[in-house]
Amino acid sequence: MAGHGLTRATTAVRVLDLLRANGTLSRVELAERVELTPATITNAVRRLIDAGLVREVGRDPQQGRGQPRRLLELDAGAWYSVGIQIDRTTTTIVVVDFAGTRIASAGLRGTGAVGPESTVLALAEHVGSLLRRAGVPRERVLGVGLVTHGPQDRERGVLLTAQPGPEWMEFPLTASLSDLLGLPVLLENDADAAAFGEFWAGALPTDTFGLVYMGSGIGGGVVVDGEVYRGRASNAVEIGHVALNGGEAPCVCGNRGCAQAEAGPQAVVAQVLADSSLAERFGVEGRPDGTLADFDRIARAWRSGDREATGLLERSARWIGQAAVALVNLFDLDTVVLAGPAFVIAGPLYREHITAELERSALSRVLHRPQVHVSSNVDIAAATGGALHVLRTLSVGARVPRSRAEADLN
Amino acid sequence: MAGHGLTRATTAVRVLDLLRANGTLSRVELAERVELTPATITNAVRRLIDAGLVREVGRDPQQGRGQPRRLLELDAGAWYSVGIQIDRTTTTIVVVDFAGTRIASAGLRGTGAVGPESTVLALAEHVGSLLRRAGVPRERVLGVGLVTHGPQDRERGVLLTAQPGPEWMEFPLTASLSDLLGLPVLLENDADAAAFGEFWAGALPTDTFGLVYMGSGIGGGVVVDGEVYRGRASNAVEIGHVALNGGEAPCVCGNRGCAQAEAGPQAVVAQVLADSSLAERFGVEGRPDGTLADFDRIARAWRSGDREATGLLERSARWIGQAAVALVNLFDLDTVVLAGPAFVIAGPLYREHITAELERSALSRVLHRPQVHVSSNVDIAAATGGALHVLRTLSVGARVPRSRAEADLN
Repeated sequence: MAGHGLTRATTAVRVLDLLRANGTLSRVELAERVELTPATITNAVRRLIDAGLVREVGRDPQQGRGQPRRLLELDAGAWYSVGIQIDRTTTTIVVVDFAGTRIASAGLRGTGAVGPESTVLALAEHVGSLLRRAGVPRERVLGVGLVTHGPQDRERGVLLTAQPGPEWMEFPLTASLSDLLGLPVLLENDADAAAFGEFWAGALPTDTFGLVYMGSGIGGGVVVDGEVYRGRASNAVEIGHVALNGGEAPCVCGNRGCAQAEAGPQAVVAQVLADSSLAERFGVEGRPDGTLADFDRIARAWRSGDREATGLLERSARWIGQAAVALVNLFDLDTVVLAGPAFVIAGPLYREHITAELERSALSRVLHRPQVHVSSNVDIAAATGGALHVLRTLSVGARVPRSRAEADLN
Repeated sequence: MAGHGLTRATTAVRVLDLLRANGTLSRVELAERVELTPATITNAVRRLIDAGLVREVGRDPQQGRGQPRRLLELDAGAWYSVGIQIDRTTTTIVVVDFAGTRIASAGLRGTGAVGPESTVLALAEHVGSLLRRAGVPRERVLGVGLVTHGPQDRERGVLLTAQPGPEWMEFPLTASLSDLLGLPVLLENDADAAAFGEFWAGALPTDTFGLVYMGSGIGGGVVVDGEVYRGRASNAVEIGHVALNGGEAPCVCGNRGCAQAEAGPQAVVAQVLADSSLAERFGVEGRPDGTLADFDRIARAWRSGDREATGLLERSARWIGQAAVALVNLFDLDTVVLAGPAFVIAGPLYREHITAELERSALSRVLHRPQVHVSSNVDIAAATGGALHVLRTLSVGARVPRSRAEADLN
C-alpha cells in the first residue's frame, strides 16, 4: 500500500512540478512531458483537481483540429509554504503560494552568537508576523522549509556539526520550531535548497548543473535531470572542503587547504584584517557575525576599482574556480550556477574567474564550453528552495482545509 | 506510447534485477522490494513469464499459513551476453547467462599500439571463438557490452579522446564491432561498469558506494540506491583528474598534479624506471603496453618485503587516498570499493592506506567509519559489468529466439 502511494505521489508531484514551472499545460502536454499514458495523467489530474490543487482554466486556442484542449494550472491559493534560511550572518524568510510565487519576504540579522533556543523562538515570531502581514491564514500553510549549512541529519531535523557553536550540535531544530509554529518543519541543506530554488525558478537553460553556494561558508549542490543529487545521508556536495592544489590554510574540518579555508568570505576578510590600513580603507570591522557585511565592503571596493580589493577577490575566485573544476570533473557537468549572499555584489568577478579556470582545466573543455551563471535570486535562492521543497514534499496527500473546501462548494 | 513502455520496462527491469541478485523470490517479496502493489507485480511477472525470461520453480516452504507462495527465478538460458573490457595493456572477455553467472572468460593482451580497426577485428574473432567454445548459439546472445576508459559518447559509441592514440578519437567502435558480430554493442565506461558489476555481484553490504578503478589509468564510479550516477553526458566520475594538494606532475589532460599523473600505475612504473638498479631488481621493463605487468612486478616486490617498492606504492596509495577523500566528500559516501587489474596484487596495501586517508580527512569521519573494500572480482569486474549492463538494457522487449520458444512448447 505504501508502495502504491509512493508511485501515485510521484506522478502527482511531477504533474505539479510541471505546472509550477510552466504556468498552464494541457493533459496531453503533461502526458508527453512525464512520459506516461494520457489515461494515467487523466487519473492523476482528476485526483489533484478533487484535492483542490489543480484547476481548469479554459481551452488552448492553438489546437487546429478537434475539440480544443482544456488547460490546467495550479490553484495558487490552495496552499502556502514558508522558507527560512539561517546563517551566522543573515536570516531570510520567504512566503510562497502554491504556484511558487513569492508573496512576502524578510531579511534579518543572522544567528550571530545567539544559541539555537533563542534563534528558534525569534524565527517563530518572525514567521508569525510575516504570515499576518501577508494575510495568509495559518491553516493554509503546508509547512516550513528550514535551510541551514551542513552536515545535517535531515530525517531527525538536527545539525551534525558544532558550527556555529557547540550548543547547535544535535539541537532539535525542526521539532522545536514545529512545536512553536504548529506546522511541519523540514530541514534542508542551503546549497541543495539554492539549487532547487534556482531550477524551479525556471531561469536555467538546462536541468543538469552544479551549484556553488557562498554564504559565510562554501557549499555545493548538483541537479541532474531536475532532481537534487543526494548521497548516502542526503548531505550536500561538500565543495567547500575540496583540498586545493597548493592550499595550506588550516580548516575547521581538521584538514588543510580546503576551498572554504583558503578562499571563503571569512578567509578574504581575515586577509584584509591582517593589514590595518587596508581594513580601515574598506571599512572592514571584523565582528564575528559581520563576515558577509565585511565581505560586501571589500566587494564594493573592488567595484570602485581598488587594486588590492581586486587582487584579494581574484585570488579567492581562482581558488573557487579550482574547486569548481573538481565539481565539474567528478559530476560530469558543463554548467555551474553561483548562488548565496556572498555573490550579491562580487558575483560578476567570481563568474569571470571561475569561467576562466573551467576553460583552462575542466576535462570536458574540448567538448563544450563550460557555462557559469550568477543565480537570478542570488541572496534568496536558498530560502525560496526551502519553501518549494515543502510544497513538493507535503502537498500530495494533504487535505485542503475545510474552510476552503466549503468555499469551493459555493 | 513510448512513455508507457518506459514505465513498464522500468518495473520489469527492477524485477529482473532483484531475481538476478537474489536467486529466487515470491511475487509478494518482489512487490515489497520494488514498492508496488501485488497486482502491478503480478502483471509484470506474467509478461516476463510470457517472454520466457522468468519461470516458476516451486513453492516457498517457509510460509506458515495459507497457500505457499510460488517462487520465481530467471530462466538462466533465456539469453546470454558478452562483456569486453579493453585497455592498452589487457583485454578481458566474459560470457554470462541471463542469471548473471559467468560461463566463459578469456584474458588477452591489450590493444597496445594496435589501431582500432585491427583491435575490433581481433575482438570479433575472440568473441566468436569464445561463444563456440562455451556452446552458446549466436542467436541466444542479446548483445555485447564494450567497456573502455572515458571520455566517451555512449550514444554514438565512440571515444572522445585521443588516448591511447589519435586514430581512436571518434572511431566508430560499437558500429564496426556490431557489423562484424551481427549483434548490438553498447559502450560503457570501465569504472561505471566495474561499479555495476560489483553491485550486481551482490558482494557489498550497501547499495550506495564510490568505486576507484585502476587499470593503467584511474577512473571513478558512484552507485546510489543501486543505480550508477550519470552526469550530463553519462561520462564517469573523473577521479583520476582530481588535482591533489601538493601535486606537480603534468597530466595528459593538460593540468598538473592529477591523481593519475601523480600516483597511477604509469607514474609508479616511471619512478622505478628512473632508477636503473631498482628497475633491474624488480624486473621492470618499461614497454609501453606492459605498464600493468611492470606494476605487478613492483607489487610483488612489495609483497616480498622490499622497502623501496613499499615506499613507492605507499606514496601512490596516499595520493589516491586524497582523491578518495574528494570523492567521498563531494558525493556524500561512506563506502569505497577498489577494482581494476592494478589492484589484483597491490589491493591490500592500497586498501590500508586509502582507509587511513579517509579516517584522517573525510568530513563524515566523525559520524561513521569509512569502509574500503577490494572488489571480489578485481580484474574482471568491468567486463562483467559490461555484460550485465547489456542484460539489463536489452532483455525487456527482446523476443526470445524461435528455437527456444518451440522448445518451450514441448
